[in-house]
Amino acid sequence: MSMLQGRPRVVIVGAGFGGLSAAKALADSPFDVVLIDRQNYHLFQPLLYQVATAGLSPADIAAPIRAIFAGQKNTTVLLGSVQEVCPSRREIIAGDRRISYDYLVIATGAQHTYFGHDHWASFAPGLKTVDDATRLRAKILLAFERAESEQDELKRRRWLNFVVIGGGPTGVELAGAIAELANRALAKDFRTIDPRCARIVLVEAGPRILPTFDASLSLEAQKGLEGLGVEIRLGQPVTQCDNAGVQIEQEFIPAATIIWAAGVKASPAGDWLGVPTDRAGRVVVGPDFSVPGYPEVFVIGDTASAKDLSGKPLPGVAPVAKQQGRHVAGLLMARLCGASEPRFRYRDFGSLATIGRKLAVAEIGSVRLSGFAAWLLWSVAHVYFLIGFRNRTVVAMTWLWSYLTFERGTRLITGMPEEGRVSPPGSIAASRNPLPSLIAQQRQ
Amino acid sequence: MSMLQGRPRVVIVGAGFGGLSAAKALADSPFDVVLIDRQNYHLFQPLLYQVATAGLSPADIAAPIRAIFAGQKNTTVLLGSVQEVCPSRREIIAGDRRISYDYLVIATGAQHTYFGHDHWASFAPGLKTVDDATRLRAKILLAFERAESEQDELKRRRWLNFVVIGGGPTGVELAGAIAELANRALAKDFRTIDPRCARIVLVEAGPRILPTFDASLSLEAQKGLEGLGVEIRLGQPVTQCDNAGVQIEQEFIPAATIIWAAGVKASPAGDWLGVPTDRAGRVVVGPDFSVPGYPEVFVIGDTASAKDLSGKPLPGVAPVAKQQGRHVAGLLMARLCGASEPRFRYRDFGSLATIGRKLAVAEIGSVRLSGFAAWLLWSVAHVYFLIGFRNRTVVAMTWLWSYLTFERGTRLITGMPEEGRVSPPGSIAASRNPLPSLIAQQRQ
Repeated sequence: MSMLQGRPRVVIVGAGFGGLSAAKALADSPFDVVLIDRQNYHLFQPLLYQVATAGLSPADIAAPIRAIFAGQKNTTVLLGSVQEVCPSRREIIAGDRRISYDYLVIATGAQHTYFGHDHWASFAPGLKTVDDATRLRAKILLAFERAESEQDELKRRRWLNFVVIGGGPTGVELAGAIAELANRALAKDFRTIDPRCARIVLVEAGPRILPTFDASLSLEAQKGLEGLGVEIRLGQPVTQCDNAGVQIEQEFIPAATIIWAAGVKASPAGDWLGVPTDRAGRVVVGPDFSVPGYPEVFVIGDTASAKDLSGKPLPGVAPVAKQQGRHVAGLLMARLCGASEPRFRYRDFGSLATIGRKLAVAEIGSVRLSGFAAWLLWSVAHVYFLIGFRNRTVVAMTWLWSYLTFERGTRLITGMPEEGRVSPPGSIAASRNPLPSLIAQQRQ
Repeated sequence: MSMLQGRPRVVIVGAGFGGLSAAKALADSPFDVVLIDRQNYHLFQPLLYQVATAGLSPADIAAPIRAIFAGQKNTTVLLGSVQEVCPSRREIIAGDRRISYDYLVIATGAQHTYFGHDHWASFAPGLKTVDDATRLRAKILLAFERAESEQDELKRRRWLNFVVIGGGPTGVELAGAIAELANRALAKDFRTIDPRCARIVLVEAGPRILPTFDASLSLEAQKGLEGLGVEIRLGQPVTQCDNAGVQIEQEFIPAATIIWAAGVKASPAGDWLGVPTDRAGRVVVGPDFSVPGYPEVFVIGDTASAKDLSGKPLPGVAPVAKQQGRHVAGLLMARLCGASEPRFRYRDFGSLATIGRKLAVAEIGSVRLSGFAAWLLWSVAHVYFLIGFRNRTVVAMTWLWSYLTFERGTRLITGMPEEGRVSPPGSIAASRNPLPSLIAQQRQ
């Protein structure tokens, strides 16, 4: 059944940080490696918020999976979506294909969850894929366009209100980036509205933003966002989302743009395998990341609920997934040659989150940084971890250019049905004088 | 009715080369300028084929219209689609807005035409917008993916056949770029197929490709394309297009990817105005580009049928549109201050078309260039005419990188429904051994 005769086959599902690092670590190994993903590219998700806020192009943070493995002869890349895993037959089913495996690594990541309010998805989209990001970019840019052509003050207000739900790194980065877009890149581009009047609200149900960081850095981040004009609501869960806006306890905020950065749940690997999961849908794995009852099946990254040597739960971040991928690859090689199996030890390089230009927070061991130094560190680390010389250079150059000019280079509204661009929903009445004469005063 | 009290208003419809140059030439003029476009960006269409063939990102060849005019105080940018023009009331209707004008410039370009075979559009899409280009990119890249996972040799053949219909510059550039994508960037990335076996056919109904160039350059371009492995069919009109492939006279070419680069017709400005058009739907305008009966309405660019001083029809190319836009702006200023109206004289800087790496043709007056020199000229000219420092730098750098590495940086399949990516239509039977064992032979 193996492509490379006689070689044991490792099938890796998902080319995110975990799957990619496992496949790379199996280069030149005696295994026949099959890497399968729904997309033809590996996405550097930590920078996806910059695509959504018109800072980078999708291709700047994505690398074709085939190109990454072009020279890795023992590895076959497949484009496809896994529907089913048959662990008893050691087989996965993707589309019309059945692929047998000797070892299986599941690294399929996580998706949004609306905690039982799935109908919120259409009003408060999340940010996980390139298509999510380009749609969100169009939505944010269109909101300013609609505000510009809206006559009614209340309706205009709704277009200029942006609510980000969830105070983790993604929510913080999105809120900061929207504020900078409005305050800087768009500031001089409109004639009727002043984009700097946009209201950006970050809502967090817990007591502070960036809850995984030290409390002092949460406070620094909060100050930084407030300095950019972002309103922060803490300890206030969202109780309702709809086309009109967001209900936060007693207060209703009318808003055309609502972004969901509040919760993720694991992809359905637990269902595929028929094994226990935790409350977030993650497969509970052993210390070697294998699945109870199936020592040849491993689950890593955001799909797994795993613990460190000390018993501490491993966080759902890229470095964990990458280290797990490398660990499983080493384990398989050790098994093959009968060597003793290595034990996993998580090396925590620290956490970084950016708020805006010259503003970030960093926590590395007991060292806590904020402000410009943290921002420089964040920039260098993200360029360094991007895959491919071209992407690194383009991103570094784009950032330098944005830093110097305050501009955003990818302000494209694409992928919208044409009628969606023409007139705002519900405003049918023709207005005889659509261009208010306040431009002259406002802009000169 | 004017935004800027007392100033005569010029409404410009379309922010392509013509509309953009007219609006820019009216900077610091006593006019109140309103520029309206369906998109929020100006698109550098001559490089759109590079987006479709994974060479550049959309944002690299697009500039936000608002950013271009941010500092031009007398100019208002509107996002909207014009449905109607009422020349008797000097008014246009866009969405729910009516905008009055003193002068109107229509520069709405052209769209595809299938010469009465509109149902071909779904099988043989054309290339006019960013969404066209990203869809075409996904289609081309997916064809290779499908071929890779196809067991049936005949079906695989269909995935690897690419037919480009139309031998003008766009068709030539697309055919060359697809050939280079297959021969170079993708060559080492697959395990079952050899992308170099892809068959690329360029079909032209006329007797030669690049018919607007000198015949010697048509021949050079043909040789260049054939050197890249492109098959060229001359004097053979397409008689049928469908999901299975293309019928060219007696021959049927099975092909999953068919691209339409054969014909354009003008946007419906003639219908809006109720004035005569030529066979391509272009408004027949006077020597000053005004419309018969409406001296305050001008039509320029691909929407107009205009003649040079010598009576020669002006070609549908970017330099004509740009020069017409500047000319109309100068004319309006002359009218305003009662000066004598300038006459239009087309300055022909020559024509350029690229075939591939180090391969282009150029015709500048009586000078004819081909090969590396023409390609360098083409590269420099296109970078020079791109708008914005950032776009120029990114494109120049991306090209240098591609030139050195033969790679393509934007190989993203995006915007597809998920099921569209999983399994090819019609192949439902589950195959037990989906990974043929010919990989080892082929690749080692």
